[in-house]
Amino acid sequence: MVHSLENVELREQYERAGFGGRVGWGARPALLVIDMAQGWTRTENPLGSDLSGVLAEIKRICAVARRRNIPIIFTTMGSDPSSGERGEFAPPKLRGGGLQRGTPSVELEPELDRRQGEPLVEKPRASAFFATNVLSMLLSHRVDTVIVVGCSTSGCIRATCESAFNYDFRVIVPKTAVGDRSPSAHEASLFDIDMRFGDVVNVDEVIEHLAGVGTTPDHLAE
Amino acid sequence: MVHSLENVELREQYERAGFGGRVGWGARPALLVIDMAQGWTRTENPLGSDLSGVLAEIKRICAVARRRNIPIIFTTMGSDPSSGERGEFAPPKLRGGGLQRGTPSVELEPELDRRQGEPLVEKPRASAFFATNVLSMLLSHRVDTVIVVGCSTSGCIRATCESAFNYDFRVIVPKTAVGDRSPSAHEASLFDIDMRFGDVVNVDEVIEHLAGVGTTPDHLAE
Amino acid sequence: MVHSLENVELREQYERAGFGGRVGWGARPALLVIDMAQGWTRTENPLGSDLSGVLAEIKRICAVARRRNIPIIFTTMGSDPSSGERGEFAPPKLRGGGLQRGTPSVELEPELDRRQGEPLVEKPRASAFFATNVLSMLLSHRVDTVIVVGCSTSGCIRATCESAFNYDFRVIVPKTAVGDRSPSAHEASLFDIDMRFGDVVNVDEVIEHLAGVGTTPDHLAE
Amino acid sequence: MVHSLENVELREQYERAGFGGRVGWGARPALLVIDMAQGWTRTENPLGSDLSGVLAEIKRICAVARRRNIPIIFTTMGSDPSSGERGEFAPPKLRGGGLQRGTPSVELEPELDRRQGEPLVEKPRASAFFATNVLSMLLSHRVDTVIVVGCSTSGCIRATCESAFNYDFRVIVPKTAVGDRSPSAHEASLFDIDMRFGDVVNVDEVIEHLAGVGTTPDHLAE
Repeated sequence: MVHSLENVELREQYERAGFGGRVGWGARPALLVIDMAQGWTRTENPLGSDLSGVLAEIKRICAVARRRNIPIIFTTMGSDPSSGERGEFAPPKLRGGGLQRGTPSVELEPELDRRQGEPLVEKPRASAFFATNVLSMLLSHRVDTVIVVGCSTSGCIRATCESAFNYDFRVIVPKTAVGDRSPSAHEASLFDIDMRFGDVVNVDEVIEHLAGVGTTPDHLAE
Repeated sequence: MVHSLENVELREQYERAGFGGRVGWGARPALLVIDMAQGWTRTENPLGSDLSGVLAEIKRICAVARRRNIPIIFTTMGSDPSSGERGEFAPPKLRGGGLQRGTPSVELEPELDRRQGEPLVEKPRASAFFATNVLSMLLSHRVDTVIVVGCSTSGCIRATCESAFNYDFRVIVPKTAVGDRSPSAHEASLFDIDMRFGDVVNVDEVIEHLAGVGTTPDHLAE
Repeated sequence: MVHSLENVELREQYERAGFGGRVGWGARPALLVIDMAQGWTRTENPLGSDLSGVLAEIKRICAVARRRNIPIIFTTMGSDPSSGERGEFAPPKLRGGGLQRGTPSVELEPELDRRQGEPLVEKPRASAFFATNVLSMLLSHRVDTVIVVGCSTSGCIRATCESAFNYDFRVIVPKTAVGDRSPSAHEASLFDIDMRFGDVVNVDEVIEHLAGVGTTPDHLAE
Repeated sequence: MVHSLENVELREQYERAGFGGRVGWGARPALLVIDMAQGWTRTENPLGSDLSGVLAEIKRICAVARRRNIPIIFTTMGSDPSSGERGEFAPPKLRGGGLQRGTPSVELEPELDRRQGEPLVEKPRASAFFATNVLSMLLSHRVDTVIVVGCSTSGCIRATCESAFNYDFRVIVPKTAVGDRSPSAHEASLFDIDMRFGDVVNVDEVIEHLAGVGTTPDHLAE
């Protein structure tokens, strides 16, 4: 049985158990752009896959978020075996991926054009909330809705959505603005996110909503 | 493409990206028995499915854990719309499942025969670590390895494994001691757990290992 | 040098270093009533001291909070040596206080008259936020301001204020609604709270503010 | 009444309430060096005070820790008003201190001579554990005892000790290796730490203990 949003039978099984339904938009959204760094976005890297379509969608969402003063937070990962952060007891699986801090693989895609006032957070695990200051940042902005984009759907996107849900944020995932090296893992995770943690929607719905909320930045107001 | 442990192609794709490998056993294990309460274990309930085989496997593991003084922690969930815990801003999806605190649906299966010294934790979200004292309990026992059993594989089991991994515990999941109402979600989650968070193994491996560690309880020592 | 709010010299020293100032009221307050259980409020108990004046002040604040639908959360503590929660590695200092779960010492003062919809949280450590669901409860109600009352000023009140500050809540402490067995520890802690974490104010200011916010409960509206 | 370790009457009052006692040393210590950056250690800065004696003591402890392969973690703070991390709802008290990220004020004292394998963590709040990866680092090294040194005793030292205690670490504070701009706040906090969170001891006890545990680094072993 295919595990995906299109699987009507599975969806009905979940809905009978009380999952599903819409969370909808709250009053104050923020945009989390997860791990759009070159180690994931460039196919020559071991963790990389073709995310050019995802990148284009994220750029469209960033553009409207910037026009409406919606907070944007970027994340990346990166570890360093010589940093002393992981002890000799940590088996390799716990030592973090192969992306080396300070190398191009952990740098954001330049096209994202990160601006002043848009924090870049180095997270040690899949969830953007684990062992980082992201929760405090969101609370400081009185955010109640987080739009999660980037990669990988089955790893860091899913984990970030679950954490955000745990803290009572409304989670919105624009379907074509998240990607994964495995199409089956991508599909299965979108299904899980939509059933358990938030709403999987179209990018256009997100763009339309953001255009109607937030405030006009000073440099754009006349 | 089927998303499961048996899918050699998908496994190889993940292993090329640096996932997979074994975490192995540390020095001090504990057993987490997740949500084996009647709301999940009895088919007449909306969230329920037939977990009789899973229950039998868990009983075998509990027996050896008790003989070797391995800490056992049980969890359940339960919410109460009149408790004031969730605000009027919480959309239904965030308000917790339909299991009512204080009803039989949140009570453990009696066959598990919980003993004095085996905490029962009411958790508000899928992960046994979120907003509970489970981390402190494990640290107080100097645990470095958590064996995760119970249900549902794609929900609370997966979330608990991810949290335990985040905190650097070695995660061990005995395959037939976890269950899910959806066979495809069960398979996909076992694959994810094995690739990302810990080792999916046979129940016999767990039983054999536990028999050789821990200490003999006073009442069994001669 | 006496360490207290009245010490003008010490206050000026802190203010020169960038501490002090007012946080003020946000848009949505909640009331946290910390550890007003009999083990602390009755002088015959080892941890107890005379908190009758504090209790009277808290009752005044609860009354207006209930009239205005302001969320109220109560806490207590309690441990059980036979529960298995603390391992044999925990030195006595880490094992929790002498208040036994399930005894009158951990029960709230009956005069507080806790109502349906006012959660009672058993917390394992001084801060109401540590290893509990209090953060999620506050986020679910979209609270941005926490009024902290109860005992002991130098222990659980201080710790709860620091956690609330960490998460970006505005912290308000009505001076005569918190108490401590040690007058010097009480004074020193009020000073610290006022300099670092929030505003130490009069009970009347709190009552006046609450009377003007929130909503009228259905059963009081005509 | 003076609130300090030398106050026999206050100490007895706390001990009757069940506080006090020793936590003692566990099996695996680590050293946390808190905020020994120039904003705090140089008197020309608003937050600064004369910590030359404290710095000398910390250097002695670092020396033995390095000889015995004991993990060392350094912290600093630093914020940036233009970073977007704090929202416009945050009152000044919540916006973080005046130390600007990227300036000398947040750089460690060069005499500490931080080595490869000794992480430097930028923490957003007083506790080294809040919104950082410090807990995971300690767990990865299987640490059970944290030695806390640096400044300020009444702020970041106290908060870090309380967090470490919450997570069941044994907390050791060498008295002359922590400092504070206010002598009365320093004394009151040492008393609180000793009564509630861990053991306040002499630097020589720490040095003697560390000399007998850990392992010899490869480059020192013959």
